[in-house]
Amino acid sequence: MAVRRTITGFSNPLVKFLRSLREKKHRKQERRFLAEGLRLLTDARECGIVPEILVMAIGRDPHPLLDALEDAVAAAGGDIVEMDVEILAKVTGKDNPQAVAGVFAEFDTRLATLDRAAAPIWLVAQALRDPGNLGTMLRTGDAVGAGGLILLDDCADPFSVEAVRASMGAIFTQKIVTARWDEFLPWLREGAGAQHGGQLVAASLRDPTDYREAPYAAPCFLMVGNESQGLPQAYEEACDLRVTIPMLGRADSLNAAVAGAVLAYEALAHLRRD
Amino acid sequence: MAVRRTITGFSNPLVKFLRSLREKKHRKQERRFLAEGLRLLTDARECGIVPEILVMAIGRDPHPLLDALEDAVAAAGGDIVEMDVEILAKVTGKDNPQAVAGVFAEFDTRLATLDRAAAPIWLVAQALRDPGNLGTMLRTGDAVGAGGLILLDDCADPFSVEAVRASMGAIFTQKIVTARWDEFLPWLREGAGAQHGGQLVAASLRDPTDYREAPYAAPCFLMVGNESQGLPQAYEEACDLRVTIPMLGRADSLNAAVAGAVLAYEALAHLRRD
Repeated sequence: MAVRRTITGFSNPLVKFLRSLREKKHRKQERRFLAEGLRLLTDARECGIVPEILVMAIGRDPHPLLDALEDAVAAAGGDIVEMDVEILAKVTGKDNPQAVAGVFAEFDTRLATLDRAAAPIWLVAQALRDPGNLGTMLRTGDAVGAGGLILLDDCADPFSVEAVRASMGAIFTQKIVTARWDEFLPWLREGAGAQHGGQLVAASLRDPTDYREAPYAAPCFLMVGNESQGLPQAYEEACDLRVTIPMLGRADSLNAAVAGAVLAYEALAHLRRD
Repeated sequence: MAVRRTITGFSNPLVKFLRSLREKKHRKQERRFLAEGLRLLTDARECGIVPEILVMAIGRDPHPLLDALEDAVAAAGGDIVEMDVEILAKVTGKDNPQAVAGVFAEFDTRLATLDRAAAPIWLVAQALRDPGNLGTMLRTGDAVGAGGLILLDDCADPFSVEAVRASMGAIFTQKIVTARWDEFLPWLREGAGAQHGGQLVAASLRDPTDYREAPYAAPCFLMVGNESQGLPQAYEEACDLRVTIPMLGRADSLNAAVAGAVLAYEALAHLRRD
């Protein structure tokens, strides 16, 4: 049976704990993250993922989706906590009495847990620094039926409140992996047996194929680079396929999340046609 | 000849003026906006647009692009202002002695100034609230050879520091128009004479055509809606073409800037092929 608690003081340790999860250091330490909003928590529930702690405002309006959420948390033996609207606003940073938040256990992001055969498309981001871009890539991955997002090198934290929010729920549907390049590439290549372990693709100006005519093949790993530096040359050179996206204006690159989406939708169309 | 000034006090009126341009109210009042960074200012210069006021740090390292910028501002009779690094950091919000900023006159954004024949693709955003999305759409527009971005109803300010930065210089290459729907639609239709005035296209679930197979026609106006509400039904119904983008996952929509980019690259491929 769920533990129900009511919190009325700002200095309560749980309030401090919840607020601490807005910082990466504390998220890593606790291996927990925060997701906010009824829609996001409902997405999680419908994916079979329930928060360990559900936090709601005292005196909130009833809502059937909130009831469903409470039931699910109770059934899973989680904590249900009510607090004053003012305190909840300190936790969520939003002055909204309908606000609701949940604490989730971080997912296992080790490369070894990734099943490359589970999806035809995987997105790969290298040193992506903007949590909004990261969340947007998760959202795009969900839309194109990708299996997940592989974060190479020093990326923004996928479990930050901003990335979780920008993912629009895709944080709960997409597999998330964090890896260094020098473990990712051997992993990709070791899969090569009867079939290839995976096709690594990047947008590039080096020896490129028109992205509309390129021979995409599943499982297709579509890689984008850091917002200001792009991909390191060695990463591009290790790709199986370098494709070029038209750049007709002054700029020589697209926003990273946009480049990933244009590639992903193109690969999807090819893979569905073949 | 350019006026050269050195500012060493935080309370200088110019410092206050520069800082005030971070707020929309003051930008509208002054009809001026702020762009920051050597790259952005160089983009502007190469587009033939020079700031009225150029602001730099005292004791900065020399840089040929900075020299070119100074020369251009001087030639145009603008102000060149040097200030202590600490003061410049207050203006730009960045602790970077290489920081440079410029004050530009806002562009004329009236619909009547738009020449629809100037480009095959135009992007249209309705009630887009995120300045990052807005800047990203400008950047995408530049890349696909669009003529500009038409902002319908109550959008984020394209001249905000965030939008200007996210545009990566496209603010200086793309025509920007702000208009209400009930002036935009008649304007679009009145162009209909020997040729149609423009094809209005939106991603939609109503009576849609596969976005890969749709008959895009120049000048093609690609419209995306508000981040959380999408397009109003009446706007969708007024479109010449409603297209559907595959959504294979749980979510029922893409990030607005991503949706615009996927549509824009598809339309570009069709218009180049035809």
